[in-house]
Amino acid sequence: MSGGRPGTQKARLGGDLSSRQPAFNQRLHPLTDVNANARLFDYEARVKESFDRIVPVLKQVAAMQCEPRFEERALELIHSELGYELPHEEINHAWVSGLDMRRLFAMSVFKTYRRISDEFYTHDPLGGRDQQAFDSFLQDCGFHLLDVTPCADGRLAHAISYVLRLPYAAVRRKSYAGSLFDVENTVQKWAETEMLRFREGRPNTADAPTRYLKTVMYHFSSVDPAHQGCAAHGSDDELAARAGLERLQAFQQAIENTYCCGASVDLLLIGLDTDTDAIRVHVPDRDSRIDLTRWVDGHKLYEITRGMAPEQARAHILELVRAHAAEQSRSTGGDAPAEGMLRLIAQLIENNISQIDYVRAYHQGGYADIGHAERFIGAGIGFEEIQLRNLTYFAYLATVEEGAADMDVGIKIFSGLNVSRGLPVPVIVRYDYHGGVPGARERAVAHCERIAAALKARYPKLCADGLLHCLRAVRDCDAGAPIEVVGCSLQTQAAAAH
Amino acid sequence: MSGGRPGTQKARLGGDLSSRQPAFNQRLHPLTDVNANARLFDYEARVKESFDRIVPVLKQVAAMQCEPRFEERALELIHSELGYELPHEEINHAWVSGLDMRRLFAMSVFKTYRRISDEFYTHDPLGGRDQQAFDSFLQDCGFHLLDVTPCADGRLAHAISYVLRLPYAAVRRKSYAGSLFDVENTVQKWAETEMLRFREGRPNTADAPTRYLKTVMYHFSSVDPAHQGCAAHGSDDELAARAGLERLQAFQQAIENTYCCGASVDLLLIGLDTDTDAIRVHVPDRDSRIDLTRWVDGHKLYEITRGMAPEQARAHILELVRAHAAEQSRSTGGDAPAEGMLRLIAQLIENNISQIDYVRAYHQGGYADIGHAERFIGAGIGFEEIQLRNLTYFAYLATVEEGAADMDVGIKIFSGLNVSRGLPVPVIVRYDYHGGVPGARERAVAHCERIAAALKARYPKLCADGLLHCLRAVRDCDAGAPIEVVGCSLQTQAAAAH
Repeated sequence: MSGGRPGTQKARLGGDLSSRQPAFNQRLHPLTDVNANARLFDYEARVKESFDRIVPVLKQVAAMQCEPRFEERALELIHSELGYELPHEEINHAWVSGLDMRRLFAMSVFKTYRRISDEFYTHDPLGGRDQQAFDSFLQDCGFHLLDVTPCADGRLAHAISYVLRLPYAAVRRKSYAGSLFDVENTVQKWAETEMLRFREGRPNTADAPTRYLKTVMYHFSSVDPAHQGCAAHGSDDELAARAGLERLQAFQQAIENTYCCGASVDLLLIGLDTDTDAIRVHVPDRDSRIDLTRWVDGHKLYEITRGMAPEQARAHILELVRAHAAEQSRSTGGDAPAEGMLRLIAQLIENNISQIDYVRAYHQGGYADIGHAERFIGAGIGFEEIQLRNLTYFAYLATVEEGAADMDVGIKIFSGLNVSRGLPVPVIVRYDYHGGVPGARERAVAHCERIAAALKARYPKLCADGLLHCLRAVRDCDAGAPIEVVGCSLQTQAAAAH
Repeated sequence: MSGGRPGTQKARLGGDLSSRQPAFNQRLHPLTDVNANARLFDYEARVKESFDRIVPVLKQVAAMQCEPRFEERALELIHSELGYELPHEEINHAWVSGLDMRRLFAMSVFKTYRRISDEFYTHDPLGGRDQQAFDSFLQDCGFHLLDVTPCADGRLAHAISYVLRLPYAAVRRKSYAGSLFDVENTVQKWAETEMLRFREGRPNTADAPTRYLKTVMYHFSSVDPAHQGCAAHGSDDELAARAGLERLQAFQQAIENTYCCGASVDLLLIGLDTDTDAIRVHVPDRDSRIDLTRWVDGHKLYEITRGMAPEQARAHILELVRAHAAEQSRSTGGDAPAEGMLRLIAQLIENNISQIDYVRAYHQGGYADIGHAERFIGAGIGFEEIQLRNLTYFAYLATVEEGAADMDVGIKIFSGLNVSRGLPVPVIVRYDYHGGVPGARERAVAHCERIAAALKARYPKLCADGLLHCLRAVRDCDAGAPIEVVGCSLQTQAAAAH
């Protein structure tokens, strides 16, 4: 993909997110990081707009077909507006058989994805690799790894970088439908983490009294609770929370049953209102017992502390979290959590306050897209660069056989979003690998091909009608390198890769 | 399945392995464990005969159809000969529509499998859980885990308990087609092993200077080298050996590249002649460099030492292994391997001598079934109880999507073995789980169901024709419990399980 930058005609192309000005008619919270918000919004607007520009530009191209110098002008328009060089052969025969707009759409989505992915790994636009301060803070709080499972719903894809304002490189994020993470896989990750502490003192030595903190983030909708909650749990918020808690408890018990010497982990359950991005945190007691009916509410704490000076607000948030925990332990008889856990929760609440103001300032206090509005499906293993809300429907899977249910949901969503408009479902199949393992790249490529073939077998009609297209990409996650495109259903590998 | 024991009519049912007497016309090697051989043969003959009795008994049943008291007598015959209670309803309507011999055959295979599997976990007929002495010996030799990958070919399924005479519980065995083991999975296993040493001192503490020993066993045929070698490598012995070595090197390099602090592993490459069960061991140098063109030959060492007293033979084998290593290191310039590696190899050769004599005494020096003669396909994860040659075609897989190539080979083999005779392919889908992990059993059952459904989707014609039947079983491998049958394509769950 060529690096041509999007041009300047965007204003007249409708739906322009980046021209939006923050709404400063209301006072911001004293703890809100205004600069971070501006930077984050710039990134969100820029990325989403580059996808949302595709349809208007292609409509223009379609309308130009009968005009003089069509081929030349179409290539120019696509280059200046969508930032990539369309191969001549895509358009040369249009005068005979018309333009294949489905192909052009899928190609545009893949080229745009490729560009934003490259930017992410090359320039780190969110600064998420700057993790040292958070690593230290986390260890001070008594944890050597923060492992977060948000729901795979696209409306939680920004959970780490936006909602919680954490450096993505410092957090293990693995999304699952309904937040129902894979217990066996997480036990393995725990063992690997312990081994590194013992063997290599990473991130700290094994004698440090820190723990693995497993966190689940479930979600709900304050605007339309009965319809826009978690689909995997039938928009039943209580069920979503309970299912997340059960999975957390299963993981803790798996560790305790499998390993001796007092092995255990700490647990945290967080709820997210996908309309306002405000979180609620279920404060665990010292034994990781979690009460589904009690939480500290980010929104409420925002309101209570909004009139204070920053330091006062910060101190007060910690006080309120501590008071909540104390009251809870009086009523349940459990021990209050360690101070480190309280400090971490207070910090998450403080971080979330910036996000609450972000949604207020840039999204009128509540997102316009309260439902699904993803731009493509990401299937496979990887996608660290996806840190934006409603950009990607994410199906974490090693095989379509195991991930069939998630894929079917994704195809259903995109049947509404795209197929109903005659547009294809763009699927990006991705497989990250560890470059230090000989043969790993070749196996990752083979995995991509296997998954793409299985998708074709599962959705034969869509594929035959040109309504499902698949880009295949791998990435060496040890090297911190950009993705490598290894194939595409659209055409020859060469054309997709450049 | 009822525990009825097979009756005594077997002699007239043809192909009777257990009536065979050992051929003692030749002298045995002084190091051969005669008692062990008799015990092992008793087990092999008993198990295989219980499968091989099925067809003759069912032929008898078929022939009885027009005789008086058919139902009653058929049930009796099946009970006394095949050792299980056939449900009445299987046979009650035979007078109308005839007997469904395919169903009866598949059911008989599944019941027989169930019985031998139960016996294995209940009575440990091979004594393979008696591992303490070998564990100590292995650690004395400088290794804390012996991880062996034989080829998934059914002719290597007895590699641990027979060919190498090791207690199966002391060895990690994971079979792969062509011995091409999963590097990523083995790296994970290495990390878990290290973690247990650090955290729990199992099997020894991390400061003990022992290593993880990864072994590949490839195979070849001395009788028909061009056709009965490893199918995955086109019966090309050199290719089979080289592919195994490359995988070993990739694993070692993966560990060294991924972990610091001098992390490494030791490697061993063994070849097996599937006609005689004699092994050849490629002696590695001190840096795990392996020469594909040199090996110590179990058969040759057998011949050299056969006239000696046991202690003298034992000492001489070690001497010969040491001399081989010394000569090899003179010619290649590498350092000779550590004494522990030499001792382990000598022990494996000594163990293998018993097996050479086993094949000589009980199988006329070379197996009659030099090709495939498996009794069923085992698909999934588990099957520790399969320790017999040519009993099971093993497809190690978590999903049919990934294991499709292996399954296709298995189906092809059984098309020749069974379908060509009108008999169905019996597939046992198995998923072992760790009972200490909450929800693991339910997930294992779901995995079984998913795999069985995927098999049905991949081989629809065979299934529709009653030519592929599937038993589903799970097992809590932490509990050391027998398998639990959770379903069957033949009928209601209840009927298959009892």
